[in-house]
Amino acid sequence: MTVRRFNAFGWENVPVLSYKEGGPYKDVTRQILFEGAESLPVQWRYFEVQPGGHSTLERHEHIHWVLILRGRGACLVGDEITDIAEHDLIEIAPLQWHQFRAAEDAPLGFLCLVAAERDRPQLPSEDDLAGLRQDAKIADFIRP
Amino acid sequence: MTVRRFNAFGWENVPVLSYKEGGPYKDVTRQILFEGAESLPVQWRYFEVQPGGHSTLERHEHIHWVLILRGRGACLVGDEITDIAEHDLIEIAPLQWHQFRAAEDAPLGFLCLVAAERDRPQLPSEDDLAGLRQDAKIADFIRP
Repeated sequence: MTVRRFNAFGWENVPVLSYKEGGPYKDVTRQILFEGAESLPVQWRYFEVQPGGHSTLERHEHIHWVLILRGRGACLVGDEITDIAEHDLIEIAPLQWHQFRAAEDAPLGFLCLVAAERDRPQLPSEDDLAGLRQDAKIADFIRP
Repeated sequence: MTVRRFNAFGWENVPVLSYKEGGPYKDVTRQILFEGAESLPVQWRYFEVQPGGHSTLERHEHIHWVLILRGRGACLVGDEITDIAEHDLIEIAPLQWHQFRAAEDAPLGFLCLVAAERDRPQLPSEDDLAGLRQDAKIADFIRP
């Protein structure tokens, strides 16, 4: 189908999936908008975090390109915590710890582009967490 | 910079460019949101067509993945003409003729993903146009 219509942050013929099988997270869904073609070997997804929810605190070698499509919240990328809102762009470089949190009173929906072939996310070890928590703002932000 | 903020359909550190150098078009701008990384060899762009404007009628081997970000209009893809509005998804397969037109009273802004390495667009020959115009709806829609 050439055109798939949008309705209420869902799309025709795009199922709403669990965010992921493992890893701690809260109130997140995943939709695959475009799936890696041979000549365009990437996956374009839409994630939605409900108010008060968060994605998994993780890192990996593959990079993320993100555009916020709905709502607002904040993200940790590396050692920066930034408020984010509709249509902001975010680039996550290899091995940067990252986590997205929706506002308490608004969802956070975002487009996220990744390579079709990519490594699995790594969760923080106790040592990683201790390192991250040396920054009080990060200690307060993360939900490991 | 990790986060680039959005403001009025522009982004921090993202210049507004001409749509293209050649080819007939009307009132279209281009912004490159993310530029092909080695591990993610694609380009993610935002195009905006002003009310009454249109992109170039063209085709190419490379595929397009499109998400409408702003406004509304219509598109020709292959032999289908479809009204499109915010957040609709469009996939353009190899060598499908395609053209985007904004509504007369609204802009049409869309995200468009392509491979970093891609062939140049082809414009229609007189024979191609004669073929397209055999369908009266397409004859009426296109702006070659």
